Amino acid sequence: MSSGYRSERPPRQDDGTLIEGRNAVLELLRAGRTIDKIFLAEGGRGGDIASAAKKQGVPVVTCDRRKLDHMSPTGSHQGVIAQVAAQDYVALEDILLVAEQRGEPPLLVVCDGIEDPHNLGAIIRSAEAAGAHGIVIPKRRAVGLTAAVARAAAGALAHMGVHKANNLAAVLDELKERGIWLFGAEADGDAPLFEADFDRPCALVIGSEGEGLSRLTREKCDYIVSIPMRGRVNSLNASNAAAVMLFEAVRRRTHAK
Amino acid sequence: MSSGYRSERPPRQDDGTLIEGRNAVLELLRAGRTIDKIFLAEGGRGGDIASAAKKQGVPVVTCDRRKLDHMSPTGSHQGVIAQVAAQDYVALEDILLVAEQRGEPPLLVVCDGIEDPHNLGAIIRSAEAAGAHGIVIPKRRAVGLTAAVARAAAGALAHMGVHKANNLAAVLDELKERGIWLFGAEADGDAPLFEADFDRPCALVIGSEGEGLSRLTREKCDYIVSIPMRGRVNSLNASNAAAVMLFEAVRRRTHAK
Repeated sequence: MSSGYRSERPPRQDDGTLIEGRNAVLELLRAGRTIDKIFLAEGGRGGDIASAAKKQGVPVVTCDRRKLDHMSPTGSHQGVIAQVAAQDYVALEDILLVAEQRGEPPLLVVCDGIEDPHNLGAIIRSAEAAGAHGIVIPKRRAVGLTAAVARAAAGALAHMGVHKANNLAAVLDELKERGIWLFGAEADGDAPLFEADFDRPCALVIGSEGEGLSRLTREKCDYIVSIPMRGRVNSLNASNAAAVMLFEAVRRRTHAK
Repeated sequence: MSSGYRSERPPRQDDGTLIEGRNAVLELLRAGRTIDKIFLAEGGRGGDIASAAKKQGVPVVTCDRRKLDHMSPTGSHQGVIAQVAAQDYVALEDILLVAEQRGEPPLLVVCDGIEDPHNLGAIIRSAEAAGAHGIVIPKRRAVGLTAAVARAAAGALAHMGVHKANNLAAVLDELKERGIWLFGAEADGDAPLFEADFDRPCALVIGSEGEGLSRLTREKCDYIVSIPMRGRVNSLNASNAAAVMLFEAVRRRTHAK
């Protein structure tokens, strides 16, 4: 089945629709996402992926590993690259609808200017794993849903709606109007993490790597949550802070009724 | 993420801990400096360096000359680049001493093969912030204390002892003999996260990005902790998993007495 595609030239390195890595591609297949094509390195361990792809009628192209190296957005393709349609952003409405359909109080993550694709990807992955209903990112001064983000999210992006806000402050206002409480994370917060009421409808607001929460965002938050710092450093990596808050929300919603 | 990705990625060009050139590296070896790894060009004249490295137990990675060209800080590597640690490693004893001096039950993180410097750096940062007493990493098939790790740790490395284990399984045995409980993290663990007795002396054992916990490490763990997965993906980014467990340990030690 691959023979007919041998001559096709791989996409260029900056193509934003390339998803790479064994788990990320397997997760896409499991999620039933539309995949245009899968590139596998010759002699690599791609048998399981090739057969899953065949079942879904996804063309598989076998090619020299150096071609994968060349087209790889991040350099760590593990012998597998899938070319998919770029993930569409969703409306805020759609995120809230997911919560409603699941009969759960909304749990969102708002990223106030995350610039590192590893961090945004890990946040999406942790949010999906924690059962959050969606992510909000701003349009400007932040990374979007690039191939590197998708890769770091390890398949989670296929299951998680991301809303891109033209105006983050306006979206925060809208969330508040809809009864969603905004919990910002900062070193000097006044709401202790383990006492925060994450079982309410809530959005966890994560600041940027360099600056933390912007002044305006901080002012809009209902609570500034303090993650206890028991060492010498006074902050966490942005995705780690998000994960800690997300799983405290899981605990709160499942164990602390 | 996935198996199969065993080839070690060379560090980036701006890594400040790279020493290159035949004589410079031979001199490092003679001086007995702690070297994490030596990269040798395939087919180059590195036999004497390889055997000197072997005598001192320094891992040697043979790779394509172009990779050396890419990672070389000055462009004249002569087929040899050594990677030295950004910070000295400590003895296991020293880590346990820190716990004793603080009068706290030991809290360690054992990294079973973390390869991504962003992840190791973020783990060190979160561990320090959570008041952990030290980190254990294996000598092989894992990133060491590179400049990229130090950067990702955002200053935390200066306050956190890292022990490099020649034999990780032996260190796990030693920890158990010293009364430290080993809590591994896996998707299908049998010990629910929010019920784990992290107030005991404990080491949180984090698997690699690709493979999770190795079979041997998994067997040595006293408990396999299950982080609740409420979405479709079945694992977290390694540093996020570490952060979630570390701060659950903080909660357990401070709020759930």
